[in-house]
Amino acid sequence: MRPAASVPTVTVKAGTGTEMHVLVSPEQGETGFALRRFIMQAGGGMPLHTNLVEHQQYVLRGKARIRVADTVYDVAPDHTLFIPAGVPHSYEVVDGPFEFICVVPSTPDRITLIEDC
Amino acid sequence: MRPAASVPTVTVKAGTGTEMHVLVSPEQGETGFALRRFIMQAGGGMPLHTNLVEHQQYVLRGKARIRVADTVYDVAPDHTLFIPAGVPHSYEVVDGPFEFICVVPSTPDRITLIEDC
Repeated sequence: MRPAASVPTVTVKAGTGTEMHVLVSPEQGETGFALRRFIMQAGGGMPLHTNLVEHQQYVLRGKARIRVADTVYDVAPDHTLFIPAGVPHSYEVVDGPFEFICVVPSTPDRITLIEDC
Repeated sequence: MRPAASVPTVTVKAGTGTEMHVLVSPEQGETGFALRRFIMQAGGGMPLHTNLVEHQQYVLRGKARIRVADTVYDVAPDHTLFIPAGVPHSYEVVDGPFEFICVVPSTPDRITLIEDC
């Protein structure tokens, strides 16, 4: 057991005012997924992008506008999201800090930014 | 996106005052894990038991005393736990409702109760 706050965060370079930490790591887990927490400050977020891995998310605090493919969701605490691998998505903090759990498989990932036409 | 509260809960028969719901299901997920939320009322919990699957957990609300193998942890919001497959563990609510995220692989599971000597 450990408090999430005791785990150092890293800056998410593709985002603004966005940090994350891996709370249960791929090394610690046994079957190939990892539990991570993202923290986005007021005014922060991430531009439209894709990942190679699916996201299973649970909102802890704050509010944000999250686009997934062509749909925009206004999310608040205790909302859940599923973002399939390869689907464009973006985050815009509405009420920060915006914090959420994001579980991903432990396979290689890559962020690809998308020009929003 | 959906609010967790919109997803029906099921009673966890091995527990007391314990319900759970699957927020991102194995069918929805792509790579073999599922995001679930447990809700344990004041006075509730689960006796010492094992599962066939690992647990990656994040505490949302309330407080509980959680035993994992021979160690007892007092857990509160924003604490994380990793419980390996097959390791005996129990939950005793200290301040309810006690709510936590529990991510598991989508492989078959079985709860085995353990006589606590």
